[in-house]
Amino acid sequence: MYPRISGFLKESNLNGFLFVGDSISDADIYYLTHFLAGDRFALLAREKTTLLVTSMEKGRAEKESSADEVICTSEYGFAKKLAECGKPDEAYLQVLQEFLHDHGVMRLGVPFRLPAGIFQHLCRDFEVKILESPASRWREVKTEAEKAAIQLTQKACERAMKQATKLIANSEPCGDILYRHGQPLTSEQVRSLIEVSLLEDGCEAVDTIVAGGMSGADPHARGSGPLLANAPIVIDIFPRSKSSRYFADMTRTILKGEAPLEVKEMYEAVLQAQAKGLLAIRAGVSGKEVHSQVVRVFHELGFPERKSSGFTHSTGHGVGLEVHERPHLGEFGETLQNNHVVTVEPGLYYPNIGGVRLEDLVVVTETGCENLTHFEKKLVL
Amino acid sequence: MYPRISGFLKESNLNGFLFVGDSISDADIYYLTHFLAGDRFALLAREKTTLLVTSMEKGRAEKESSADEVICTSEYGFAKKLAECGKPDEAYLQVLQEFLHDHGVMRLGVPFRLPAGIFQHLCRDFEVKILESPASRWREVKTEAEKAAIQLTQKACERAMKQATKLIANSEPCGDILYRHGQPLTSEQVRSLIEVSLLEDGCEAVDTIVAGGMSGADPHARGSGPLLANAPIVIDIFPRSKSSRYFADMTRTILKGEAPLEVKEMYEAVLQAQAKGLLAIRAGVSGKEVHSQVVRVFHELGFPERKSSGFTHSTGHGVGLEVHERPHLGEFGETLQNNHVVTVEPGLYYPNIGGVRLEDLVVVTETGCENLTHFEKKLVL
Repeated sequence: MYPRISGFLKESNLNGFLFVGDSISDADIYYLTHFLAGDRFALLAREKTTLLVTSMEKGRAEKESSADEVICTSEYGFAKKLAECGKPDEAYLQVLQEFLHDHGVMRLGVPFRLPAGIFQHLCRDFEVKILESPASRWREVKTEAEKAAIQLTQKACERAMKQATKLIANSEPCGDILYRHGQPLTSEQVRSLIEVSLLEDGCEAVDTIVAGGMSGADPHARGSGPLLANAPIVIDIFPRSKSSRYFADMTRTILKGEAPLEVKEMYEAVLQAQAKGLLAIRAGVSGKEVHSQVVRVFHELGFPERKSSGFTHSTGHGVGLEVHERPHLGEFGETLQNNHVVTVEPGLYYPNIGGVRLEDLVVVTETGCENLTHFEKKLVL
Repeated sequence: MYPRISGFLKESNLNGFLFVGDSISDADIYYLTHFLAGDRFALLAREKTTLLVTSMEKGRAEKESSADEVICTSEYGFAKKLAECGKPDEAYLQVLQEFLHDHGVMRLGVPFRLPAGIFQHLCRDFEVKILESPASRWREVKTEAEKAAIQLTQKACERAMKQATKLIANSEPCGDILYRHGQPLTSEQVRSLIEVSLLEDGCEAVDTIVAGGMSGADPHARGSGPLLANAPIVIDIFPRSKSSRYFADMTRTILKGEAPLEVKEMYEAVLQAQAKGLLAIRAGVSGKEVHSQVVRVFHELGFPERKSSGFTHSTGHGVGLEVHERPHLGEFGETLQNNHVVTVEPGLYYPNIGGVRLEDLVVVTETGCENLTHFEKKLVL
């Protein structure tokens, strides 16, 4: 980490890079500190890394974080400053300013997402440059340990998917609706089964899509109510490991009952498009190129890209400490590198039919990719 | 909502207030839009509220949000701009600028936490003022619907607590350790039981504390490994409802086996301090006053406040769309108002003994408070 930070600071003519945020919502801060905290803290990255935390968090930060140094806001008289001005934000800004002066920082880099209130205040005293956070670039390429963590989350993901498909396989179509024990089987029930399974494996489901019938035609709809027979059900699971914080992401589309011809054709097209996308991936190829190959398959099979139906989204995205991160596999996709971890998830969506999407998670290699997803692809259960 | 926004803009001499963020991590944005999205979008609040979202989210935003108007980044040629500059953030800033011009905004308010990169860009074209987000003040006082939502989360919280205490009650002390079915009972097992129970009730546990023995002496430690007999176990559950997004928060301290005299005395003191705090609460009293009454009880009972042991934190905090929000019941606590929802959670912590904390959740009323917590307080199971 440290040579990278030093190199970055030198290139940018800075003597420090400052992050302020909580490491639950800011993946860069977690990546650089390995300190998980829901309350705001500051990270000053130079040759060494220094955390500025509240006294409540000092002990834990010293134990858990990878920072070289942990300093407490009370060492800069936070309580006294707060008593004087009565405003926590203002007292915090004063502390931060003294902390930076104390650490000899004059030319400071900050990320795009630093709170504007902090930026404005720092501009009075320091030369502040807003830059793309270097950590979000570093996070793209995964280490062995990171790949292992993602693979572990993916395993939990597949166990949950297995339970969901089993539940739907064991349901009974009656008219247009799927039943179980004489009651309609709902998206909520399937989602709940998935989430309990994930929890048992130490993962949390930030959200889970179980969208049947027409609702599946909106790629972001979560799905609710009774599940339909003879209609595609999109199940998209993207859990995060509570211990490692790494995500996985996978989608399958399944159907109980009789598959209409048009759904079978959509499924076949998505399958072929995905196979083409997977084949196109390797280090040195751009995400844009992979995407255009996927688009071409849909064109050739008679599913042209349209604005609001058909293949309406991009082919994939990076996965790591965020469920959507770089690189992008779409119209503006960057060049893929060895040890990028990305999804390949073509889909087709028609308001009057529903959605079909298949999503695998792969590691980019020099010669192709390693698929981390080992779950079967089968439309009709 | 609208008269409040208009009033605020008039007072501040602004013709719009702009939020940009995702409504999962930004409670103000969720509060003002009721649109839950993990991807960044913009909210312009004037006499009416306007969302600026990606084309992927437009349909859902129109269906789910409470905004008056939903506009799509594609209407401002996002894709073309991105193709020209190749940088998503830059293309987005251009779109945002045109969107604001189009809506006749010149004097713009933004919250402290607006990303610095957006703030800096807007300053070139608009008169931008960083202000405390008015929504975070509005969120303090709860409506009937909000109170009902919090109460529902609290019920799920208590059912989970019931299961945790039952599991520990049914364990067997053997030497210093609690056993179940011949195996040490661990913090992880209790936490897992709590989390599954919460999930069954439609809640997610952002985190859960099950900290036994010495680990309980750090108020933020989550706890891990075998649970100890004859030692206090702090269980702090703060789930969020997945549907309403509202949190609840409660803590109990329990012990299986023989309670040492000093732990009994700590428990008794915390119980008395909490009772005093609950009695002190009513609209018009300050959080500072409530806190100082709690502190006084500890002093009188021979548990003086110290820097790193004893009663080391404040008495409580507001609970709503965030688990920690205003008002603050501590040294700088604001005046309590009717329909504030706050915790009352005194605790005592000694590194060589462990921690004892009791936390109830109450609604502030004109004459006192309504306790939303109906779970017994009993140290020895």
